[in-house]
Amino acid sequence: MYAIELNGFGGPEVMEWTVAVDPEPGPGEVLVEVVAAGVNRADVMQRKGFYPPPADASSILGLECSGTIVQLGAGVTDWQVGDRVCALLAGGGYAQFVAVPVTQLLPIPEGMDAVAAAGLPEVAATVWSNLVLTAGLRSGQLVLIHGGGGGIGTHAIQVARGLGARVAVTAGSDAKLTKCAELGAEILINYRDDDFVTALADQGGADVILDNMGAKYLERNVEALAPYGQLVVIGMQGGVSGTLNIAALLRKWGTVAATNVRGRPRSGPGSKAEIIAAVHAQLWPRVAAGEIVPVISAELPITEAARAHEMLDDAQTFGKVILRVRD
Amino acid sequence: MYAIELNGFGGPEVMEWTVAVDPEPGPGEVLVEVVAAGVNRADVMQRKGFYPPPADASSILGLECSGTIVQLGAGVTDWQVGDRVCALLAGGGYAQFVAVPVTQLLPIPEGMDAVAAAGLPEVAATVWSNLVLTAGLRSGQLVLIHGGGGGIGTHAIQVARGLGARVAVTAGSDAKLTKCAELGAEILINYRDDDFVTALADQGGADVILDNMGAKYLERNVEALAPYGQLVVIGMQGGVSGTLNIAALLRKWGTVAATNVRGRPRSGPGSKAEIIAAVHAQLWPRVAAGEIVPVISAELPITEAARAHEMLDDAQTFGKVILRVRD
Repeated sequence: MYAIELNGFGGPEVMEWTVAVDPEPGPGEVLVEVVAAGVNRADVMQRKGFYPPPADASSILGLECSGTIVQLGAGVTDWQVGDRVCALLAGGGYAQFVAVPVTQLLPIPEGMDAVAAAGLPEVAATVWSNLVLTAGLRSGQLVLIHGGGGGIGTHAIQVARGLGARVAVTAGSDAKLTKCAELGAEILINYRDDDFVTALADQGGADVILDNMGAKYLERNVEALAPYGQLVVIGMQGGVSGTLNIAALLRKWGTVAATNVRGRPRSGPGSKAEIIAAVHAQLWPRVAAGEIVPVISAELPITEAARAHEMLDDAQTFGKVILRVRD
Repeated sequence: MYAIELNGFGGPEVMEWTVAVDPEPGPGEVLVEVVAAGVNRADVMQRKGFYPPPADASSILGLECSGTIVQLGAGVTDWQVGDRVCALLAGGGYAQFVAVPVTQLLPIPEGMDAVAAAGLPEVAATVWSNLVLTAGLRSGQLVLIHGGGGGIGTHAIQVARGLGARVAVTAGSDAKLTKCAELGAEILINYRDDDFVTALADQGGADVILDNMGAKYLERNVEALAPYGQLVVIGMQGGVSGTLNIAALLRKWGTVAATNVRGRPRSGPGSKAEIIAAVHAQLWPRVAAGEIVPVISAELPITEAARAHEMLDDAQTFGKVILRVRD
């Protein structure tokens, strides 16, 4: 098959669409012929050499894809060859074929095209596991979503609104904030002009904060929490090691959690299988009903993966960037 | 009545047993004639001027006491004059009388003397709210309890064992560690000689850590967590502001919580009332059955409150220090 391979670590130019080893589905896995793959910031980090794949994962980039099942591994009975699926991956999505544990498969919702579905599994697993399984976000609570215009952010706004929560977002442009408002965000904070702590002060702070900045925002995030507030860090774009004001956290009986999806075990408590089962049971009906829609900023052919990576840092994108592998 | 009043903030000598204003029970409160009051580190901090009481609390020291109900406030129907009780207080325990919301009362278990019961409410509320309500400690998990020989520690060891968890403790002397082992601790770490991160490495880390050191232990506590591990900070004897390695926390999908009991609201979600209700329903039967016993290091007359405070820093104490107010 063809796949994106890395010629060393570095800039977008290290990615090459070239012949790669064909994957084979092991027991409990299926082989998916990929139609499209979602692009995530983790892919960029891996390309630069900062985010090695887990030991049991493909070294090929790509944490989510959509496509068609073309082969069943041993013991697979619940899925059929020909099923249209999207999948959470530990790696391997930037390729014509990928082997996927069945516990990481989701059906493509009726009426949704495969390109749109390719960008859902990773954001859905990340948002559902953090906002719902970890933080227990409830109706009436206020959630602050940093990076509201990103792939995670655009999905998280909709999930939070669907749960009945009120949504505050930060983003770097008023154009993005306007689009966040169309998705359901109420409190719009342009981080270039306004301080989110101040912006939430008259709300009494946020019950839940979904953060992608890490160290840079740690102290202000703690300040911005409401009593019993929960800060969930899912990205470290602003650094890995920060100052925690324990006294401030204690005064509000607050919590700081840090999680990712990729490194989790395949099965068992807290695993990818457990998260995808929850996404399938609890979130997927909302997606099928059209309550939560994929937000696609750009769709590029896989041969333009380099440009796709560059777009993640482009202030004009809103939502996911998708790589199309076949028609 | 007589009570301990503070002549300014400072050393133990600022405490004086003198005439104070008689408290009156408001609606939903009872007046308790105090037999004994538990001493907590928070009292020492308050005496030094570092821990002002909440706005609605007595300025008199004392977060827990035992005694007898001598008067009912308006609307109180579930308790009787003459009932032997112990109580969680927002303040006011170092006194002959204290007014207590009924939601913070616990019956003294059959057969337990009032002096022993005086040291239970604050540690029970702290330990149960953190180990059970916050961290969800379960059978088979490993919990690391810092300060195993203190009032909180000696209670937490027993609670954790009662839940079927395995217990590791830190303490500053082998004599204290031997006593911790008698209470049920399995892994004994003398912090003067051994590093607790290293000591837990072959266990795969701790599922839950109950910490009283704050900043000083923050980085090592994160290192010592198992996957999905939860660090719960309930004291800041080692400083209030520390370095959080978010990347290390994220790699294990970990959580840092910081909580206290005193500052919580009287009623509503997360309140003192909610915690005491859980303690009464879930912990108190274990206390009544003798599975969890009060550990008393010393009992002194209230007129020796200064010496009692000094004893908290005395390496020889093990368990609670209690002040007796009347026979």
